[in-house]
Amino acid sequence: MNFNNRIDRRNKNCSKWDMMENLYGISSQDGLAMWTADSDYPTAPCVREAVQEAVDHGVFGYGWQDAAYLNAIQWWMKARHGWDVDTDWILSSQGLGHGIAMALDVWTEKGDAVAIFTPVYHEFANKINKSGRTVTECPMVLDGNRYVLDLEDAKKRLTGREKMLIWCSPQNPSGRVWTADELRAVAAFARDNGMLLISDEIHHDLVYAGETFVPMHVASPETADNTVYVTAASKTFNIAGLRTGNMIIPDDTLRAQMRNRINALDYQPNTMGIRMVTAAYTPKGAEWADAQMVHLTEMRDLLHDGLSQIPGVKSMPLQATYLAWVDFSGTGMTHEEIKTRFRDGAKIAASDGPTFGTGGETFMRINFATQRHIVEEAVRRLQDAFSDLQ
Amino acid sequence: MNFNNRIDRRNKNCSKWDMMENLYGISSQDGLAMWTADSDYPTAPCVREAVQEAVDHGVFGYGWQDAAYLNAIQWWMKARHGWDVDTDWILSSQGLGHGIAMALDVWTEKGDAVAIFTPVYHEFANKINKSGRTVTECPMVLDGNRYVLDLEDAKKRLTGREKMLIWCSPQNPSGRVWTADELRAVAAFARDNGMLLISDEIHHDLVYAGETFVPMHVASPETADNTVYVTAASKTFNIAGLRTGNMIIPDDTLRAQMRNRINALDYQPNTMGIRMVTAAYTPKGAEWADAQMVHLTEMRDLLHDGLSQIPGVKSMPLQATYLAWVDFSGTGMTHEEIKTRFRDGAKIAASDGPTFGTGGETFMRINFATQRHIVEEAVRRLQDAFSDLQ
Ligand SMILES: Cc1ncc(COP(=O)(O)O)c(C=O)c1O
Ligand SMILES: Cc1ncc(COP(=O)(O)O)c(C=O)c1O
Repeated sequence: MNFNNRIDRRNKNCSKWDMMENLYGISSQDGLAMWTADSDYPTAPCVREAVQEAVDHGVFGYGWQDAAYLNAIQWWMKARHGWDVDTDWILSSQGLGHGIAMALDVWTEKGDAVAIFTPVYHEFANKINKSGRTVTECPMVLDGNRYVLDLEDAKKRLTGREKMLIWCSPQNPSGRVWTADELRAVAAFARDNGMLLISDEIHHDLVYAGETFVPMHVASPETADNTVYVTAASKTFNIAGLRTGNMIIPDDTLRAQMRNRINALDYQPNTMGIRMVTAAYTPKGAEWADAQMVHLTEMRDLLHDGLSQIPGVKSMPLQATYLAWVDFSGTGMTHEEIKTRFRDGAKIAASDGPTFGTGGETFMRINFATQRHIVEEAVRRLQDAFSDLQ
Repeated sequence: MNFNNRIDRRNKNCSKWDMMENLYGISSQDGLAMWTADSDYPTAPCVREAVQEAVDHGVFGYGWQDAAYLNAIQWWMKARHGWDVDTDWILSSQGLGHGIAMALDVWTEKGDAVAIFTPVYHEFANKINKSGRTVTECPMVLDGNRYVLDLEDAKKRLTGREKMLIWCSPQNPSGRVWTADELRAVAAFARDNGMLLISDEIHHDLVYAGETFVPMHVASPETADNTVYVTAASKTFNIAGLRTGNMIIPDDTLRAQMRNRINALDYQPNTMGIRMVTAAYTPKGAEWADAQMVHLTEMRDLLHDGLSQIPGVKSMPLQATYLAWVDFSGTGMTHEEIKTRFRDGAKIAASDGPTFGTGGETFMRINFATQRHIVEEAVRRLQDAFSDLQ
C-alpha cells in the first residue's frame, strides 16, 4: 500500500496522461496530468489478485451480474455507509455517466429541462445537452468557504419544464459532504416540483476523517419512490476503465422501466468489471480504501498549504473527493490568463472551472490522487507560475 | 495451444455452466453445457499476456478506443479477410447484441418492421421485439443439406413497413458461408426494398478449410451507404465476457447518427476489452486462431459422425461456426420428446431449434467449442438417449 511508488502511466491507453497534449497542448514529457478523475496509483491488491485469477483461468466467456457481485455491493453499502440495500434493487450500468444518460433517456423527453446545482461535475450538463434536453442551472451560494443551497432562489429558476434533478453527493467539484437535513431538503424540493431525483454518490467513499457521508436513501427514505441512486467502486478503487457502476432503484415501477430499457439496448456488464467490484467490496478492500484516505489527506493538505502561499489564491477546504477546487479570483487576473499560466508556466493540465457551470468562472479543479512527488512538483510549479504575485 | 486440457468453468461467473440448472433443469454436476456460443478453453496466450501486463501495471483508470486498437482491427480485417477498413469507420460497441440494439434504436421507430432470414440467431428476433418493433420472417429454403435464399418468396412476405434487414454471415445456426453472389443479392434486396442492412459477421473467423468468407463490404461495396457491418473478436478469441465489439460504418451520415446516439447514451468501451482485442488482432493471435480451427474441425467431425449413427438424426454439414445444427425430424418424435431426451436422458443443455424462428421447429443447436472428452461424452449420451431408434 505505498501510494507514492513512481508509476509511469504514459502510453498505456490512459486518457489522463495520453490525451493531455491533444486537449491541453501540454506535452506528457514534462506536463503534469491533474484533470480527469482517476488516480495515478494501482488499485487494491485484492482487486489485482482477482484479475490475476482470471488470467490464470484464461477463459473469458459470457457471465452476468451474479449473486457474489450483488452481495458484495450490499455488504459494502451496509458496512461502509449504514445503508440497507436489497440486492433486487441493483441494476448494473456501464458507469455513472451511462447510468445518468440512461435515466435521461428513460424518464425525460426531448425538450424537457433538467435541473442541476452549479458548479457541478461538467458531464451533467453535457449529458443533458447531448440528449436534446435543456439545463436549468440553480447556482449554489458560498457560506464562508463552503457551498450551501438556496432552495428559494432555485425554486424561482425553475421554468415548469423540469422533469429531473441531477444531484451530486459528495459534491464534485467542491468536495462538500451534505448533511442529512440538506439531503432531505433536496429530496423534498425534487418531489414537490415534479422532478425525479438522480442522486450521484460516486464519491461517497472518498470522505475525510471527521466528516460523515449520509446516503440519500438513509436521509430521506420517504422519497425513495422518486429517486434513483447511482454509485460505483470506480473512483474508490481506481477501476473507472472497466466501466462498471450501479443504479440502485428501490421503486419497483422505476426499476422495471429502467430494466426494460437496458434489456432493449442490450447493455450487459463485463465480467472483468464484475470480478473487480466483487473483490473490491470486501473487508480487504475496505482496509485499502482506508489507507488510501490517509494518503489523500496528506496530498490534500500538501496542495492546500502550497496553494495558500500564493496571494489571491483560495483552495476550498475539502470534506471529500481528491479534487481541489481552487479560486483564482483574488489574483485579479482574467480566466484566460490563469489558464495560460497553467498551460505555459506550470505545464499542469487541470479541469477548467467554467465548464462546471455558473459559479465556476474563476476556478480551476486540480486532481491530487497521485504520488507525493507529483503534488510537490505541482505546488512548486504553481508557486513559480504565479511568483510575480508574491 | 492444447484445446483439450480439462478446464472446470463452474462457479466462475460463467453463464453457460452456471445457469444451466436454472434455465434447463440440468445440474452442472453431471450435465454438459453446449448451448450459449462461447468456448470452454482459454483464450490465446498473446491475449492472456496482455491482461497479465495490465495486472502488473495495476492502474485501471480511464482509457479510450486508442490508435493501437483501431489499427489492430484494420490489420486483422485486411490480413484475414482482404477487407480494407478505414480506422475512421470504426465505432466500438458493447458487443454485437448491443450494436444491433443500438441500430434498431437509431434507424427504426416503434411499430416499424425488421426482416430476418430464418432460422437465425434467436437474439435478432428478441431484440426486435424488445425494442417494440415487429419481426418479418423470411424463411430460407433447403437445397439438399444447405440453406439458400428465396428472394422472390421473401419479397412477397414484406409488408412495406420493413425499415431494416438483419443479416447473419457466416450464418448462425446453419454454419453457411455465403458466396459473393448471394451477398450481392441480399444487399440489393435490402436497398431495393428500402431497408437498411445490418450485416452481422461475428463468426467470420470460424470458417473451415476449403471455404472462403467474403465480407459483405467486399462483395457489395456499392451498397456501403446502406449498410452497417458489425464484427467482434469475441467468438474467435473467446472473450465475449468483455463486451467489446465494433460497428464498421463507411457512410459518413450513418456513422454520425450512430456516434451521436452513442455519445448521448455515454457508451464507452472498457479498457480491458480494448487491450484484449488489440492483443488478439495480431500475427500471434492469427496463429492461435488457425490452431483453433484445427481443433474445431476435429470436434465438428467427431460430433457429426457420432450423430449420424442415430437413425433419423441429420446434422448439417458446417462451413463455419462451432455450432452444430441438428435436425431430429427423421425420428418422428415431437419436439417436446426431443427436448426431454436431451434434458433427462443425455443431460445436455443445447439451444432449442424453435427459438431460431420458422424452419427451426425440429432442430437442436449444439455448441462443440469444448474439449474432446466432452464432445465424446455428448456423442455417447445422445446415442444412448436415442438408442431405442437403433
Ligand atoms: C460526480 C461524478 N459522476 C460520474 C462520474 C463519471 O463516472 P463514470 O466513469 O462511472 O461514468 C464522475 C467522474 O468524475 C463524477 O465525478
Ligand atoms: C450471429 C451472432 N450475433 C451476435 C452474437 C452476440 O454477440 P455479443 O456477445 O457481442 O452480443 C452472437 C452470439 O452467439 C451471434 O451468434
